Amino acid sequence: MSPHPYYNPELHGPYERIDIGPLDLEDGGQLPQCTLAVAVHGQLNAAKDNAILVPTWYSGTSKIMEQVYIGPGRPLDPAKYCILVVNQIGNGLSTSPHHGAKPWAFPKVRIGDDVRAQHRLLTEHFGIRRLALVFGGSMGAQQTYEWAVRYPEMVERAAPLAGTASNTEHDTLFSETLCEALTSDPGFAEGRYGSAAEVAAGLRRHARLWTVMGWSTEFFQQGRHRALGFDSMNDFVDRFMSGYFGPMDPNNLLAMAWKWQRGDVARHTGGDLPAALGRIRAHTYVMPISHDMFFPPADAERECHHVPRGVFRPIECIDGHLGLFGTDPAAIAQIDANLRELLALPA
Amino acid sequence: MSPHPYYNPELHGPYERIDIGPLDLEDGGQLPQCTLAVAVHGQLNAAKDNAILVPTWYSGTSKIMEQVYIGPGRPLDPAKYCILVVNQIGNGLSTSPHHGAKPWAFPKVRIGDDVRAQHRLLTEHFGIRRLALVFGGSMGAQQTYEWAVRYPEMVERAAPLAGTASNTEHDTLFSETLCEALTSDPGFAEGRYGSAAEVAAGLRRHARLWTVMGWSTEFFQQGRHRALGFDSMNDFVDRFMSGYFGPMDPNNLLAMAWKWQRGDVARHTGGDLPAALGRIRAHTYVMPISHDMFFPPADAERECHHVPRGVFRPIECIDGHLGLFGTDPAAIAQIDANLRELLALPA
Repeated sequence: MSPHPYYNPELHGPYERIDIGPLDLEDGGQLPQCTLAVAVHGQLNAAKDNAILVPTWYSGTSKIMEQVYIGPGRPLDPAKYCILVVNQIGNGLSTSPHHGAKPWAFPKVRIGDDVRAQHRLLTEHFGIRRLALVFGGSMGAQQTYEWAVRYPEMVERAAPLAGTASNTEHDTLFSETLCEALTSDPGFAEGRYGSAAEVAAGLRRHARLWTVMGWSTEFFQQGRHRALGFDSMNDFVDRFMSGYFGPMDPNNLLAMAWKWQRGDVARHTGGDLPAALGRIRAHTYVMPISHDMFFPPADAERECHHVPRGVFRPIECIDGHLGLFGTDPAAIAQIDANLRELLALPA
Repeated sequence: MSPHPYYNPELHGPYERIDIGPLDLEDGGQLPQCTLAVAVHGQLNAAKDNAILVPTWYSGTSKIMEQVYIGPGRPLDPAKYCILVVNQIGNGLSTSPHHGAKPWAFPKVRIGDDVRAQHRLLTEHFGIRRLALVFGGSMGAQQTYEWAVRYPEMVERAAPLAGTASNTEHDTLFSETLCEALTSDPGFAEGRYGSAAEVAAGLRRHARLWTVMGWSTEFFQQGRHRALGFDSMNDFVDRFMSGYFGPMDPNNLLAMAWKWQRGDVARHTGGDLPAALGRIRAHTYVMPISHDMFFPPADAERECHHVPRGVFRPIECIDGHLGLFGTDPAAIAQIDANLRELLALPA
């Protein structure tokens, strides 16, 4: 099999693909051979107490987390911590629809499945028993909350960025419009397309919806897209947004979207969200982005109130949700300052 | 020709359809017989100085303006004012694509065309020379600004609600996603569909996008859709939003969307928006809605600064843009209070 033109180590590496064996799934079925792609930055110390877990967001891979959040002198410093960036199932690097013979028949994977798979990877493969920090944005925040609720004794600190513990109805509908943009393309053919190029129109609509909801009205009003080097909105959509999403595999995106829509730690407590959040023992810095149009600060703040050691730290940034990509250095500086403070707290 | 199942007097009347003759269009071409549907509430006085003009928004007709904003004891009181609600071109009651033999070939109509048509109607048919107030929401706000800039000597007071004088790039892209939802449906067939039912999937996607952007995250977070009588988000989308948009004609909607995207009073001044707004003589109460996701208060406030007698009066309402429909009585009370105060100002 020739390497995929997008999901490959040249674009997203280095990473190691580690087989963790068969994974039974919460919604039934099984991944007979679950492989997680992991990028490791830094070394585990002898006590194995310097591990930081970084899960990934929708469409993202370990590469963007490395580029934006990890580096010498940063809070996530490989000289001090062993930072494990684990690609989520379905993202194209870990086990994903496009790897199989029938991508359209990939089983439904939940946030909880990812977190159980990551737990097995960390405990059995790396021998890790404590996490100094779990830090993730968007769907990575969903996984961060899931970790803190499911394995409270293992997570010392948690930093969910631009995401929620329980997906809202509004956000679920927004992500449904993303799915529909793809599936309504006749070229999608119920997932049986030959290549992503056959779903180009759908991928382009998907990129436009991301442009409308992913940034913010203020981002465009202040001409931030021009400041990033694009002449016009069309140029921004065509070159940047469609350029980003265009090469991705639609079945992979849909697997992640399905998971995103159903992220909810209250599944542990029969739908009682305060009870689920009440299980968290981690020092938790809750960081929504001020201009996020689908994970707004108000939603994050409501959840934060139920986290025993929750601290609400909104990030001021007109770039909105996609400020996650590091387009606004001032936002990254705020995130770094929060992470530095959080990591300094005694476990 | 049998009456249209949606665009008819039984659902939207009473209104009078008045032929104003041929209308040359700003983008070229002509409406050979421009007919405006007008609902008149109250009587013109002898001096003809008690006229209020109310234009309509995207997808709306004169009926919703009557139901939500006009009534005895209200600021828009038919006992005191002669309130003329003029349906915009393309909305299904005034001259619209679906009236013609080739709906897909309907010429491009701009906000400025509507306002010139309305001006001809008011001056030539009704003999009106002064307007006590122009008041409109969303695309009605675009027409309100256009009136105040184009005919400053005629407009004594202006109240643009939840809309802007110059459409933003973000809003233009949002409305493009609405257009794409319709035109990407194979049943749309480049506008040559037989009936709206053939574009049902596209109309449903269009309704979903309106649900995501038309209300607000806070609206759904606080369960306002349930309070309005719907069991779930799906129920709300299916019965309320798709129920509302489903019977409309896609070519009509697209004609209005094209107009909406290009609303810009700076066309009068070579692109200089402050100069255009500086022409306004009217007392102008600028009323954005606090949680509007595509006409946010910040955009309205920027424009307001350039209106010589502009007063910024944001409406606090978590229903977002579609609070225009009167779903939140407290928002309507704020709007009424502003209109009452505005109408009390000496011309």
